[in-house]
Amino acid sequence: MKNINRVNRVKKEELLVDESIFSIANGYMGTRGTFTEGYGTEYEYNQTYINGLYEFYDYHYEENLTGFPQEGQKFVNIIDGTNIRITFQKNRINLETCNIVSLEREYNLEKGITLRKIHYQTKDEKYDFYLEETKFVSRFIKELIGIELIIYSPNYPHEIKVKSFLRQSKRNHEKNNDPRIQTLDNSMEIIAIDCEKGSITSKTERSKFTVESTMIHNVDLYNKVDDKMIKASGYFKIDKPLKVQKYVIHSSSLYDENYEARTKEIVKKLESLSWDNLLQEQEKYSNEFWNNSNIETTNAETTKLLNYNIYQLNNCGGESDIHNISAKGLSGEGYEGHYFWDTEIYMIPFFVLTNPLKAKNLLLYRYQTLELAREEARELGYSKGVKIPWRTINGEEASPYYPAGSAQFHINSDVAYAIVKYFEATNDIDFLINYGFEMLIETARFLQEATNYHEGFYHLNSVTGPDEYTTVVDDNFYTNILMKYHFNETVYLYNKYKKELEKCISKLGITEKEMKVLEDIGENIYLPFDKELNIFAQDKNFLSKARLNLDDIPKDKFPLLLNYHPLYLYKHQVLKQADTMLALLLLDFEQLDILEDTFNYYEPITTHDSSLSKCIYSIMAFKLNKSKMARKYFNEVLNTDYKNTHNNTEQGLHVANLGGSYIGFAYGVLGLRIHRGYLKLEPHRMNDLEGFNLKIQYQNETVTISLSDKLVIETTGDVKLNIYGKMIEVSNVYKTDLPE
Amino acid sequence: MKNINRVNRVKKEELLVDESIFSIANGYMGTRGTFTEGYGTEYEYNQTYINGLYEFYDYHYEENLTGFPQEGQKFVNIIDGTNIRITFQKNRINLETCNIVSLEREYNLEKGITLRKIHYQTKDEKYDFYLEETKFVSRFIKELIGIELIIYSPNYPHEIKVKSFLRQSKRNHEKNNDPRIQTLDNSMEIIAIDCEKGSITSKTERSKFTVESTMIHNVDLYNKVDDKMIKASGYFKIDKPLKVQKYVIHSSSLYDENYEARTKEIVKKLESLSWDNLLQEQEKYSNEFWNNSNIETTNAETTKLLNYNIYQLNNCGGESDIHNISAKGLSGEGYEGHYFWDTEIYMIPFFVLTNPLKAKNLLLYRYQTLELAREEARELGYSKGVKIPWRTINGEEASPYYPAGSAQFHINSDVAYAIVKYFEATNDIDFLINYGFEMLIETARFLQEATNYHEGFYHLNSVTGPDEYTTVVDDNFYTNILMKYHFNETVYLYNKYKKELEKCISKLGITEKEMKVLEDIGENIYLPFDKELNIFAQDKNFLSKARLNLDDIPKDKFPLLLNYHPLYLYKHQVLKQADTMLALLLLDFEQLDILEDTFNYYEPITTHDSSLSKCIYSIMAFKLNKSKMARKYFNEVLNTDYKNTHNNTEQGLHVANLGGSYIGFAYGVLGLRIHRGYLKLEPHRMNDLEGFNLKIQYQNETVTISLSDKLVIETTGDVKLNIYGKMIEVSNVYKTDLPE
Repeated sequence: MKNINRVNRVKKEELLVDESIFSIANGYMGTRGTFTEGYGTEYEYNQTYINGLYEFYDYHYEENLTGFPQEGQKFVNIIDGTNIRITFQKNRINLETCNIVSLEREYNLEKGITLRKIHYQTKDEKYDFYLEETKFVSRFIKELIGIELIIYSPNYPHEIKVKSFLRQSKRNHEKNNDPRIQTLDNSMEIIAIDCEKGSITSKTERSKFTVESTMIHNVDLYNKVDDKMIKASGYFKIDKPLKVQKYVIHSSSLYDENYEARTKEIVKKLESLSWDNLLQEQEKYSNEFWNNSNIETTNAETTKLLNYNIYQLNNCGGESDIHNISAKGLSGEGYEGHYFWDTEIYMIPFFVLTNPLKAKNLLLYRYQTLELAREEARELGYSKGVKIPWRTINGEEASPYYPAGSAQFHINSDVAYAIVKYFEATNDIDFLINYGFEMLIETARFLQEATNYHEGFYHLNSVTGPDEYTTVVDDNFYTNILMKYHFNETVYLYNKYKKELEKCISKLGITEKEMKVLEDIGENIYLPFDKELNIFAQDKNFLSKARLNLDDIPKDKFPLLLNYHPLYLYKHQVLKQADTMLALLLLDFEQLDILEDTFNYYEPITTHDSSLSKCIYSIMAFKLNKSKMARKYFNEVLNTDYKNTHNNTEQGLHVANLGGSYIGFAYGVLGLRIHRGYLKLEPHRMNDLEGFNLKIQYQNETVTISLSDKLVIETTGDVKLNIYGKMIEVSNVYKTDLPE
Repeated sequence: MKNINRVNRVKKEELLVDESIFSIANGYMGTRGTFTEGYGTEYEYNQTYINGLYEFYDYHYEENLTGFPQEGQKFVNIIDGTNIRITFQKNRINLETCNIVSLEREYNLEKGITLRKIHYQTKDEKYDFYLEETKFVSRFIKELIGIELIIYSPNYPHEIKVKSFLRQSKRNHEKNNDPRIQTLDNSMEIIAIDCEKGSITSKTERSKFTVESTMIHNVDLYNKVDDKMIKASGYFKIDKPLKVQKYVIHSSSLYDENYEARTKEIVKKLESLSWDNLLQEQEKYSNEFWNNSNIETTNAETTKLLNYNIYQLNNCGGESDIHNISAKGLSGEGYEGHYFWDTEIYMIPFFVLTNPLKAKNLLLYRYQTLELAREEARELGYSKGVKIPWRTINGEEASPYYPAGSAQFHINSDVAYAIVKYFEATNDIDFLINYGFEMLIETARFLQEATNYHEGFYHLNSVTGPDEYTTVVDDNFYTNILMKYHFNETVYLYNKYKKELEKCISKLGITEKEMKVLEDIGENIYLPFDKELNIFAQDKNFLSKARLNLDDIPKDKFPLLLNYHPLYLYKHQVLKQADTMLALLLLDFEQLDILEDTFNYYEPITTHDSSLSKCIYSIMAFKLNKSKMARKYFNEVLNTDYKNTHNNTEQGLHVANLGGSYIGFAYGVLGLRIHRGYLKLEPHRMNDLEGFNLKIQYQNETVTISLSDKLVIETTGDVKLNIYGKMIEVSNVYKTDLPE
């Protein structure tokens, strides 16, 4: 059984965190795990999002320098239909009026639904109310949310009132001062209400998206328009369980130009579909998902969290090239629904290995927004190529703080890296010809123009690496070595597929001379290395800075960014997240003495204040056979949201970390790496993780990797593997012992 | 005659620039050179400021990082009394209703007044109106503005209406997108109007300053309150010249707790003072000023501009330790009336050499605000010392863009530098004991904590030097060498005056050990030097960046900051302003080959987009006997505002450049430097500047330096001089020839 269960979590913090944990989504749309009947508290705030649907807002700078983005984008809390109030004797059933005798919640990952059973008792102990809620965002009809509420009381003799809403959800609770969070109060403007149909049409004023939201119920409720909302009410006895089923449909102009026709089509479809039909479809989708993605290990807790994490990752996007996957997916408002390089480096590996089509969609999103990336390159002063935005929804750079935003030039190579790995894992030559190679070239052109040749080496000045506790530096190792990889692979693919790429080469005016320049940079890019320490330096000057002793800093001063001025952080050797180590992972750097010294140097000064960090250290610790540390980090990765270790899961799931769970397992425990022409494996066995089973897609074959007494590889066709340094070809089954 | 005259400048740009050129002030208060009768155009906007009187406003950051200032300060356009409308046949006399037959303006620097004669003719050519305006901000009564308007018409037979205002001046014209300019629309709130007295009391809401503004006229006008303003009106024939005199008094709680009593006192005083008495006092003050500060040269244009520039500089502040001198003085709203390090490095030299009391006041302002500088140091994460704010009015750091603001740690040493030079020039041991040494120590403590010892040297990471086209770098040469000087001099003064400083040493807990640490840093601070180029590097990595060829950049792309993203500027070798060269000037670096190579390296990549730049290059070009270039730069310095070469003099005079004019002359043409125990002189003679005469104060003696056929030094007492490398003592007169 693949379930997440939580019992009796009714404190404010628990409820808000569980809204994220029990958030449901289908990649296109998501809604948080609020109580359908409402809490009745000031922090009640229902949120439903459509992936890629955003509104603009003006940025204000006290010093508005040239090229700063003038508009922000934020995704929108659309018209909400997830609230059904139950009223008894003029009181609503909720946390304020009743005591909670028991609360059980379940995320059923096999059925693709959330379940909640709650037993309310009125404060005078007179009445008991039992509610059972089932919710899903449909995998069959992408615009559909299904909610079922079963209401029963053994001792309340009167009729209750059921009042189901379609309305703008309003925030009542306090805003947060965290720079990583903006609030989405600015909702949609209602432009039409159709009481009979039970629908509200709303739009975003500046970005011009329209959403038609419609609610349909299985029981007779009377629709009434009141203060820009629709209330559907009815009175019912609940001496026997009353079953209220509600469908909420959100058709939007983002996905259907004719969103009204789309609504009609769905309404019609629903006439011939029962609630159970929809649940069956939901389960069918889940079955397929697990069939491709299921992970089994000998540790039940690890298995449970791993599967939950990838299940939620899969819900976040990648269904279309119109959207991407935001830092919080569709589970919360943190980072305003923005897409980051998290996608390419932390999330795409999961899709490449389990569902390459979704990986392709995510990369195509970058292709679709390339023109805006071109404009951003010009904005930054460059005459060539594109600069992939550091944060965006619609493809325009929206980073208002360039030192930890636009200055991250590495994102160009991150995208290139993901393209190359996607291609290596799929051999999707059509993608390369039609999209991938153009992106490799255009992202390279920008970087090439940004380099500076000086004293025998190419340098990249004034850029920021992944670690945001050191910004705008010269020769960030990560950026430079990723660029090296990016340029080398581009030249390699050019030489190998010159003929296939003919059209693209001609369209982009690529010349041999240009390729020579890329090759030269690839060979002679400066990579800062400290001989005495035998480590790569995070950047040219990093090692000359004062090393921050994290043990001296009080626990309540973390995350440091909320407690120290950026200049204080920037002048110290201290990391928010893996930087050099991430590069060494991605490049599969194999010189173990340097790898170990570099790990030992950076690990103690890494705060992991970013959730993009621990999975990388876990993987590298596995690589270095620091099993205890590796396992510790891996556990922390698995539990980031489940145990709310960053204290902000209420703002949404840490989606990069969900992907980090997968690579923590695949790259860490299994030591898997995708290489040109082969897969590399170096599995680890541990006391509390003796065996596992994982299925991946690789070059159109299915590969199953199991560890029990032996390591067993099963494939559906010919696959080249490198197992513990030994190259083999497997066409069916391969068995081997693990080395001592 | 020390006059500035301008004729027939009536275009919008000319009028707005001349508002700054003819701005009048007395250090406490200033008002711009608007037309008393008004322009009648949309850009009419009268502005009067009180030095040090500011209002707070909230800063908004899209990413609000820790330690960012949450409040801005801006000086306030107070209640305005500088407008007197003249109405004929329901039309006002102004630029809209009349043609301008002629306009003559004069800044009379000997009388301390501005004069304006204007001949209006109605558009139907029927009537001629002659207006003569005299204005001053009193040097006798610091709260007083005097305005005289003489109105005459040879052909207008009716009565005109005179309507004199006391009111809030409202901006009508467009705001500017320049990040260096904020607007002051947020004026004062009126809390009381006394029609009979002709006074309005207003306050700033958040900073809690109160100003009582009062107007008094010499002719009978009828006061009326209308829409939160007082209008004083009367009807007069103007077949003979009508003389309207208006006094505007602004008493403020900033300078007098009992500002109401102060107003009464002034009103009473004015009863026994005639307009002419006040003009006499004005002239008396000017005479004294010229007696101390007059510069004569054989080039009339140079003399005129030099004297105008220092006269305006003297009007900007330094009268009290409550205020300082803002970047635009009291002449315009650019930089919101903020004080910068411009004061210590560009302005104080003038006062040290002509009026040391004012230099002392300016330094005492820093002392008075030390507690806020201490808080800022804590805000930045440091446990010791003070961080002098980069921009402030009240002493709190108000820089919302830290890379070109708070990151300029050099300001601590700039203040220290000014203290040391003040002391060297005055021997004011009381100042050192009671204020100066404490500031030297506290500013040093912060910097000491910020340094990092690495591989045999002390480093200062992540700071910004004077040049703002390269920010947050490691080992900025200017910052490091100024810190070296700062620490060395502190240790020197400690050792020399240990006994005198006993109280201060004990109060601050200064130990021998602490002094050893400063001494050690002073000796071993890292100073980046490139052996091959034989130049000092602006910072550790500067020379490895791409050099920007300024000749390739279109003229309309300057200033670069308005046309290029900061990241583009930061990754290039390009300077907004003198940086390394400024350090070499301040330290009087004498190794000529390095000096010349360094000059030749940086000069071609310096845009002078800051007005703090050309004076420094001029001085250093003099030093290097690049006379033609030196003279060219010097001329540009003299004309910056007069010819509006930065295209923004309408926002106020470039006051650092006014000081720059003085040091351009004293340090440049005369080669003057203040050293421990002696004055150094290396005068230059040029074709168009063959002779000069300058009087300075030095160690309580007056020293006159003249160049005609010989160089003649006259002193009122014993003074040590170093003339062209030769140490001499002069007690009366010394004559010498200039070297070939």
